[in-house]
Amino acid sequence: MSRFWSDIVHRLTPYVPGEQPALAHPVKLNTNENPYPPSPRVVEAIRRELGEDGGASLRKYPDPTARALREAVAKHHGLRIEQAFAGNGSDEVLAHAFQALLKHDKPIAFPDITYSFYPVYAQLYGVEYETVPLNADFAIDVDDYRAPGGGVLLPNPNAPTGRALPLSEIEVLLKANPDAPVIIDEAYVDFGAESAVNLIDAYPNLLVVQTTSKARSLAGMRVGFAFGDPALIEALTRVKDSFNSYPLDRLAQVAALASYEDQAWFEESCAKVIASRETLTAQLQALGFDVVPSAANFVFAKHPAHDAAALAAALKAKEIFVRHFKLQRIDQHLRISIGTPDECNALVAALNGLIG
Amino acid sequence: MSRFWSDIVHRLTPYVPGEQPALAHPVKLNTNENPYPPSPRVVEAIRRELGEDGGASLRKYPDPTARALREAVAKHHGLRIEQAFAGNGSDEVLAHAFQALLKHDKPIAFPDITYSFYPVYAQLYGVEYETVPLNADFAIDVDDYRAPGGGVLLPNPNAPTGRALPLSEIEVLLKANPDAPVIIDEAYVDFGAESAVNLIDAYPNLLVVQTTSKARSLAGMRVGFAFGDPALIEALTRVKDSFNSYPLDRLAQVAALASYEDQAWFEESCAKVIASRETLTAQLQALGFDVVPSAANFVFAKHPAHDAAALAAALKAKEIFVRHFKLQRIDQHLRISIGTPDECNALVAALNGLIG
Repeated sequence: MSRFWSDIVHRLTPYVPGEQPALAHPVKLNTNENPYPPSPRVVEAIRRELGEDGGASLRKYPDPTARALREAVAKHHGLRIEQAFAGNGSDEVLAHAFQALLKHDKPIAFPDITYSFYPVYAQLYGVEYETVPLNADFAIDVDDYRAPGGGVLLPNPNAPTGRALPLSEIEVLLKANPDAPVIIDEAYVDFGAESAVNLIDAYPNLLVVQTTSKARSLAGMRVGFAFGDPALIEALTRVKDSFNSYPLDRLAQVAALASYEDQAWFEESCAKVIASRETLTAQLQALGFDVVPSAANFVFAKHPAHDAAALAAALKAKEIFVRHFKLQRIDQHLRISIGTPDECNALVAALNGLIG
Repeated sequence: MSRFWSDIVHRLTPYVPGEQPALAHPVKLNTNENPYPPSPRVVEAIRRELGEDGGASLRKYPDPTARALREAVAKHHGLRIEQAFAGNGSDEVLAHAFQALLKHDKPIAFPDITYSFYPVYAQLYGVEYETVPLNADFAIDVDDYRAPGGGVLLPNPNAPTGRALPLSEIEVLLKANPDAPVIIDEAYVDFGAESAVNLIDAYPNLLVVQTTSKARSLAGMRVGFAFGDPALIEALTRVKDSFNSYPLDRLAQVAALASYEDQAWFEESCAKVIASRETLTAQLQALGFDVVPSAANFVFAKHPAHDAAALAAALKAKEIFVRHFKLQRIDQHLRISIGTPDECNALVAALNGLIG
């Protein structure tokens, strides 16, 4: 507390990301990182940008519009560059979207159980919101979002549940809210859900947010995108250009671009994660866990006989990190990121020792 | 314009950074980039972070607190880590400062001629401000900032004038505004002004903002800092953690840290820029320009007989880029970044052809 703080600072309850343990070899299944490295082309592209001449390009500002990157990613999705926005991670993209598109007189709506950064953004920008309860099985019922409001924000698949909505349901949402932005946060879409990017030309109220942090193994480089009607993208650009001229550094731009040039690597690494998810789900079920059907690179699981917080702590003592949220309705669940087969096996072995 | 835009988006007039020409070999003296590359240790550090194993670290999130970097930079300045904040370029740091520290009931004050991003931030966050005219010779008179307001924001040296204030004058400002934040934007401090970091322990209202983009040749990596009382740093951190968990990517963190480990390179490159500035100043004066005394890596110059916009356009036709601002009081000035001796000579030769 300080007399120099603005009112907003006093009111904030900042977001707390998953722990980054300072251990040599933790089994780190708590922040939904990809267990596989990015495409070798990413590293090549960074080395190329560094050049033979001692990083001389680093002295120069990056392209403030990230044109080459936006062009490549737009093309990847069959979109035009005017339909693509790039930011410093999808967290930053979402923050700009709250300020640029979700701040209206009417409250916005998002699920009661979802990415816990959403209420933090709302607080930061003074955006009124209502939370809509998930069904008992943690499914989103799009009929619950039919009352016209200031906008709708949903992850698909949802986090931390992992459940996906079919595209037909997203379309119901878009039709029910023609005068408000509908933002679909597709951080995890590549692990088993359908992207809504193909609906962009038909729905001027649709904004799709994506990231290179999960399926493209670039969490360390902080690159996120929004795709939508050019008017929505312009709103984000106006805010971004009033906040920070150059959000993406040179190496982040070339790294992300290179990732989109290696479709085979991307598909293979997604396939490996999906295969491990199915194996882990079966193993957890064999241990007695209820596992929510996941279309993401994590599973959300609950054991009827063992307290989730106690399990997370016991795993942590073995240097195995999973995520536990002290939140209503989900305080008996663990969110477990899909690691390599070895990491998943280490988790299962540890759980076996604890509860088997 | 769109019905989906928030009110704030309609009102914004975004900042426009200097042009990044898509030419093979422009003489680029328009964005105050350093003409020399960063320390070789920066490139080594990035290569080390990429590792032998194909960029495997890139799949993992960076340290959200940038602890190692903040610790090193704080130590460099004789400060504690709690007195240091790191962000995605000093533009982002300043944006957070507007929201966290400058948004109060009373208006803030900054010079009428200064970094033109300041009024844009004010607009974005609804911060009331008053501009204080520079003297006729573009000097800041600190006595003009004695009326207690919501805060004071000054670059030292000022941009685009290049004029520096002595530390004793900064102290006058701090004493005259004990109940409001005084933010000194030291983007250009290393080229000839005194940093106010040593005043931080004595003045809880002082926030010093710095960047690696200029003297450290890392414009391409987007790393900036704020230094101040822990309460001020906490305010910035609370806003940052409500906006984007991980602003600095892994490579930016290691690159910036390595730059602070090579003091000799830093000093040598500053010395070269300063020497070129003095040479260029004399050459411009010989051509009849009035040159404001500069403590930065640029000069601000006006020719009594030649229109500045016309000169900038004529130089651009020769692929020499300088910055011209269509703003009151300075629309007859050019802001010229200090390039290599060759680049400065190319500029002088071109000016000779145009007006000599």
